Amino acid sequence: MPTIVVEVMPKAEILDPQGKAVAGALERLGKSAFTGVRIGKRFELTTDGPADEALLTEVRELAVEMLSNSVIEDVVSVSVLDESPAGETH
Amino acid sequence: MPTIVVEVMPKAEILDPQGKAVAGALERLGKSAFTGVRIGKRFELTTDGPADEALLTEVRELAVEMLSNSVIEDVVSVSVLDESPAGETH
Repeated sequence: MPTIVVEVMPKAEILDPQGKAVAGALERLGKSAFTGVRIGKRFELTTDGPADEALLTEVRELAVEMLSNSVIEDVVSVSVLDESPAGETH
Repeated sequence: MPTIVVEVMPKAEILDPQGKAVAGALERLGKSAFTGVRIGKRFELTTDGPADEALLTEVRELAVEMLSNSVIEDVVSVSVLDESPAGETH
């Protein structure tokens, strides 16, 4: 079954306390290579039909209207996951 | 600055009530093309150094040990984001 992945991140100008907490933890662990961490969401929508352009257009609309809050979040990616989960054969 | 993206999803055998809620909402909206929704996390780690293999190895370890809970989650992807944010020029 095709899976469509929608990725949503907090807008750059929005504080991300969860991300700040992780960045602080990395620093305490001595991982100084990282300058910042932000945490967003990854939605996997499975469909039983073909993941064609019409469906992707619908998902792009849903991503903006329903899966994200446009006041504080941006939809950064809508894509079709073509690989099968590990261990699954068709 | 290079950005490394870590993606974490709930394991297949774990119930995902958030995802179920979204799937139910899609159904109520008449979007019957979708058979399921699962919701995971997307971390963006920015670094001021090069995103080389050594750093990626470190991030893969961090992803498993710190950014995810291996009892209920899987790290599905660790990758370097090569595109600049929209509107930014170098």
